[in-house]
Amino acid sequence: MNSTLYQAWLQYAPIKDEELAAVYSRLLGTVVADLQQSRVANAAIQELRNACRSMLGIVPSITSEVRASSYFEVRIHAADAEEGTEEIGEDSMGAGRVRLGAEGFRLEHRGHGQQEKLILTGGSGKGVLYGVFHLLRLLASHQPLTGLNITEQPVNGLRMINQWDNADGSVERGYSGHSIFYENGRFTENWDRVRDYARLLASVGLNAISINNVNVHEIETKFITAEYLPTIAQLADIFREYGITLYLSINFAAPLHIGGVPTSDPLNEEVRQWWKDTADEIYDHIPDFGGFVVKADSEHRPGPFAYGRDHADGANMLAEALEPHGGLVIWRCFVYNCMQDWRDRSTDRARAAYDHFTPLDGRFKDNVLLQIKNGPMDFQVREPVSPLFGSMKETNQVLEFQIAQEYTGQQRHVCYLVPQWKEVLDFDTYANGTGSEVKKIVDGSLHGMKYSGIAAVSNIGKDENWTGHTLAQANLYGFGRLVWNPDMSAEGIAEEWTRLTFGNDETEVAVVCGMLMRSWPIYESYTSPLGVGWMITPHTHYGPDVDGYEYSRWGTYHFADRDGIGVDRTVATGTGYTAQYFEPNAARYDSLEDCPDELLLFFHHVPYSHVLKSGKTVIQHIYDTHFEGAEAAAGLLKAWTSLAGKVDLERLTQVTERLADQAEHAKHWRDVINTYFYRKSGVPDAQGRTIY
Amino acid sequence: MNSTLYQAWLQYAPIKDEELAAVYSRLLGTVVADLQQSRVANAAIQELRNACRSMLGIVPSITSEVRASSYFEVRIHAADAEEGTEEIGEDSMGAGRVRLGAEGFRLEHRGHGQQEKLILTGGSGKGVLYGVFHLLRLLASHQPLTGLNITEQPVNGLRMINQWDNADGSVERGYSGHSIFYENGRFTENWDRVRDYARLLASVGLNAISINNVNVHEIETKFITAEYLPTIAQLADIFREYGITLYLSINFAAPLHIGGVPTSDPLNEEVRQWWKDTADEIYDHIPDFGGFVVKADSEHRPGPFAYGRDHADGANMLAEALEPHGGLVIWRCFVYNCMQDWRDRSTDRARAAYDHFTPLDGRFKDNVLLQIKNGPMDFQVREPVSPLFGSMKETNQVLEFQIAQEYTGQQRHVCYLVPQWKEVLDFDTYANGTGSEVKKIVDGSLHGMKYSGIAAVSNIGKDENWTGHTLAQANLYGFGRLVWNPDMSAEGIAEEWTRLTFGNDETEVAVVCGMLMRSWPIYESYTSPLGVGWMITPHTHYGPDVDGYEYSRWGTYHFADRDGIGVDRTVATGTGYTAQYFEPNAARYDSLEDCPDELLLFFHHVPYSHVLKSGKTVIQHIYDTHFEGAEAAAGLLKAWTSLAGKVDLERLTQVTERLADQAEHAKHWRDVINTYFYRKSGVPDAQGRTIY
Repeated sequence: MNSTLYQAWLQYAPIKDEELAAVYSRLLGTVVADLQQSRVANAAIQELRNACRSMLGIVPSITSEVRASSYFEVRIHAADAEEGTEEIGEDSMGAGRVRLGAEGFRLEHRGHGQQEKLILTGGSGKGVLYGVFHLLRLLASHQPLTGLNITEQPVNGLRMINQWDNADGSVERGYSGHSIFYENGRFTENWDRVRDYARLLASVGLNAISINNVNVHEIETKFITAEYLPTIAQLADIFREYGITLYLSINFAAPLHIGGVPTSDPLNEEVRQWWKDTADEIYDHIPDFGGFVVKADSEHRPGPFAYGRDHADGANMLAEALEPHGGLVIWRCFVYNCMQDWRDRSTDRARAAYDHFTPLDGRFKDNVLLQIKNGPMDFQVREPVSPLFGSMKETNQVLEFQIAQEYTGQQRHVCYLVPQWKEVLDFDTYANGTGSEVKKIVDGSLHGMKYSGIAAVSNIGKDENWTGHTLAQANLYGFGRLVWNPDMSAEGIAEEWTRLTFGNDETEVAVVCGMLMRSWPIYESYTSPLGVGWMITPHTHYGPDVDGYEYSRWGTYHFADRDGIGVDRTVATGTGYTAQYFEPNAARYDSLEDCPDELLLFFHHVPYSHVLKSGKTVIQHIYDTHFEGAEAAAGLLKAWTSLAGKVDLERLTQVTERLADQAEHAKHWRDVINTYFYRKSGVPDAQGRTIY
Repeated sequence: MNSTLYQAWLQYAPIKDEELAAVYSRLLGTVVADLQQSRVANAAIQELRNACRSMLGIVPSITSEVRASSYFEVRIHAADAEEGTEEIGEDSMGAGRVRLGAEGFRLEHRGHGQQEKLILTGGSGKGVLYGVFHLLRLLASHQPLTGLNITEQPVNGLRMINQWDNADGSVERGYSGHSIFYENGRFTENWDRVRDYARLLASVGLNAISINNVNVHEIETKFITAEYLPTIAQLADIFREYGITLYLSINFAAPLHIGGVPTSDPLNEEVRQWWKDTADEIYDHIPDFGGFVVKADSEHRPGPFAYGRDHADGANMLAEALEPHGGLVIWRCFVYNCMQDWRDRSTDRARAAYDHFTPLDGRFKDNVLLQIKNGPMDFQVREPVSPLFGSMKETNQVLEFQIAQEYTGQQRHVCYLVPQWKEVLDFDTYANGTGSEVKKIVDGSLHGMKYSGIAAVSNIGKDENWTGHTLAQANLYGFGRLVWNPDMSAEGIAEEWTRLTFGNDETEVAVVCGMLMRSWPIYESYTSPLGVGWMITPHTHYGPDVDGYEYSRWGTYHFADRDGIGVDRTVATGTGYTAQYFEPNAARYDSLEDCPDELLLFFHHVPYSHVLKSGKTVIQHIYDTHFEGAEAAAGLLKAWTSLAGKVDLERLTQVTERLADQAEHAKHWRDVINTYFYRKSGVPDAQGRTIY
């Protein structure tokens, strides 16, 4: 696995600028390190040496004493490597002196000419790790080091990846081949691949991973037993070396299924004891085990409801078991009625999470975090931000994104999701008045949460290039970077990724970044108009099927008829969902006039003749965006193929194939959607283009 | 497996009428038999003895000499048991003296009082078998035997069942549990169950079975090799005892995949030799092997097209290999473009079989039969008869029905299909002028075919009751009886089956027969209106999804828009499909005025306001039939539950559960279809009923 596909953004391509290489080599040829036995820091230095060998053709020597005139000094600052707290510098934005947390690092250049040194100070081994990866990014993007003086700390405490991998080797909503962890009910024990994954995650600052699907099946239910824990401990060991804490998704009904307890009632003493014993056993094997991820009472998964208990009862019971060990319970809020009768218009799935959870605010233990999907539905190409953010001020919260492109082209279409995520993070909830952005809620600052952060469903699998579509690597990269610092721009992240992945040819960087930045709007334009969502093939969620979810039990409707379309979620005439937001968001969404175009059909049912802020009617908007979107998809292919000769053949071909498929599929989307609405509305396209 | 569910129509329930039982017992207590070592005839006598033990509490003694004053004489008439041809009696309808074929029998009662005898003469052992089962039907339905004098012969030569069973144990389009033949890539070797299946098939006169799916996967490709033939020979042995010849579905690309030949080109000498050698080997194991069933160049199955050859080249190559052994090639005509672009309205899947095959008429070898589905599409609840029937006068033909209810409720809804099949058989093609009914084509009489008959896709599986829905047993029964004699009435067959299955309580018989006879019209009424078809969930084919197949590659469209619906297949403005029929059918279907209502949308695109012969508009017809259909489905449940106390609890419960599901699902169908068309047309229901 030494291909450019596999190396992703850790290509460490040789630096051909000899002058630059000489400067880097001089600075990095000698590493003066005092790593306090930290395995993480040592892994970081190993990464540095490998990268230098690859980029510069040198292998830095490691020493504890300064012998060279120029050198790279690496040290762990805090006395307590776990809790680095001493004031050591200004942050990168010059906002005054800050304390360096355990995960923070400072990177400073001093001196000049033949007498310069670079000093990396980590708040712990993890700080060193992140600092080294930061340095390697600078090198790979050919940045000068002179005058370097930055301090970085992660904004979010929990920076997590959720694998939806199953023991049988499949990956739920996986579009990149089978699991790298499992096959046929067993662990693959492909430790090299796991280590490379850990490197990728650590390189962008991620620090937690849950290794099995939130839908926990028979075998995975037993992961928390002595039968599987020794192997899982081996996995934890690999991830630990890269600063990543391992979590498991658990089956709430485990006591009943595998514990020999006749119930899983969270208030039952035997059940509570069983979980405590189980936690003890887990920590015997994995002393720094992260905790449990739990999907309970959701889509037929077992949960506390079966015993007349609520989510707080369920989560707290698990929290109690983990508490002595410092473990966390990450309890998902994706709870709704998935057996809804489509004829019942009073039930609104969008309302469900808020209705279920806000009454429980304040009742969760300190080591419980509620994991909330970015939107109220399910990772659609466009939906509003979940009103749950900011509504539970006494509860730890984690935001959940989906890197896997379940509803955004499944890594067969390119769809760079960082701009979408940024919209979510920058959304002002007004929970505490202006300035109550989602990012300030989930970083814990607004409401002073003990634990908080951001998690996302992984998009990787066994495919040579990890992510099916090579350009989808940018989403995994971007997720990590954005979670480290939500104030980074989507463009900046795209550019970083492109340089690391494809090199520093400016044309290439411009073309690839341009493609990435256009890709989400393009995907939206030829698929789902105006925030309506769900016009997709049931189950697979790939390709258009306008009525696919219209008469189903999933609570996912558009109510298109010959006159109009959209879901009335207003207070006066609809489901009242808009009232779940703080003002002024509530009023804005509730008002037909003020509601933003891109979410219009999510909140309102309007006639096809309704005129948007853009000045177009809804129906003409649908036609126009679909014609334009399909054309733009073809444009992506054209842009990419202009890079022939610049990109290596392996990646050129792989991406070309996907983009060609996307262009063809975009036409199919265009024609199905346009034809559907033309047949229904009878309104001809103002420009007389072909509709079937 | 001794339950009433399992026994199906071979219940052999004790006869409680003592007088009747005494008459039967006197006549059947002694069997005078000269069975010429015929295993089939001996199996028949064994069946008789078991049945008598069960129904009458006696075990008939078998003797070669007459000792009793009343007895049952069984003999094989023809000198050559395989080819019984001597004139021996009049046929049942008194239409003059007939020759008794090998599969025919004569059943005659002579004498009276204590001195009577019953004589069964079989044209061969198989004639005896069918005669015994006929006699047992008379007994089980409490018919008098006095004066009995009937001669029966099967109308169709090939009376075949196609199992779509896969080696992995699944059954394609199987709704009755897993395969009785296979599991996990191996034969179940559940010979008892196979024997009971053979008894069921033989009891209704079926004489051929293909034991594996027409989609031949990896393992099944090897069924024609020494690895599997010994086990298959055991199966053939069981079926042989019940007069049933075994066939295999083959993979046209077998020479390439398993033969070590670099091609499967039917004109390649090495390929031809491989098939000959393969045939020789098969017949070494199974001397009376029936032949091959072939799905080629259809839905991605391999075939001669890959080599620039046509269906005749492909079929004849196989036929040549089987010819020396007397084997047949059954070559399916289900050939169409399954990668169609829905935007292309000029391609019409309905045309495909005719367009592919009629140019080949006369080119097939004598031992090739073309197997043609009843309609041009695919076993829809309503479609016209395939225009291929009668169009290939120089080619042997087999009609293919589907007993499995793929598109007719999947054995979760009751849908007695014999009335549908009768419509097909009685359809006058006018191929040779008036009186050219399909039944006369497929029985070989109209065009003098060497081989012909009727095949059907089985509906059985491992479920206790064989067919998932207990009432679906009637379809397997009915298929056999109808193929034996296409002039039997659907009502008559329903009554026979009901009496054999549930007994002779007249109320019960009336209720069950009434349910069966209403069931197809009811299913049609709440599902697919006016012959339009395909408004179903893709892949599963269960439940409504009006646009499910509308924008797909399968060639299955309804073209509903806000103004109207239907497929224009006329000559002047449509696909020209109507011209594939002989006159006057062609003109009748082509004419909007003359086209029968029930097929209107199959042939014409009409506005919702179009007035049917019934006097209703199309849209009101849709509403009315769906409201009525759902109500009628509820009525089926009501009718059935009125039999509580009459039907044993096991079957009462099983059928009640299914009917309750059906009633609920019918409402879902009603509401989805009505809502879809109301939203699209905007026309309110004239009766103001609830549409969502």
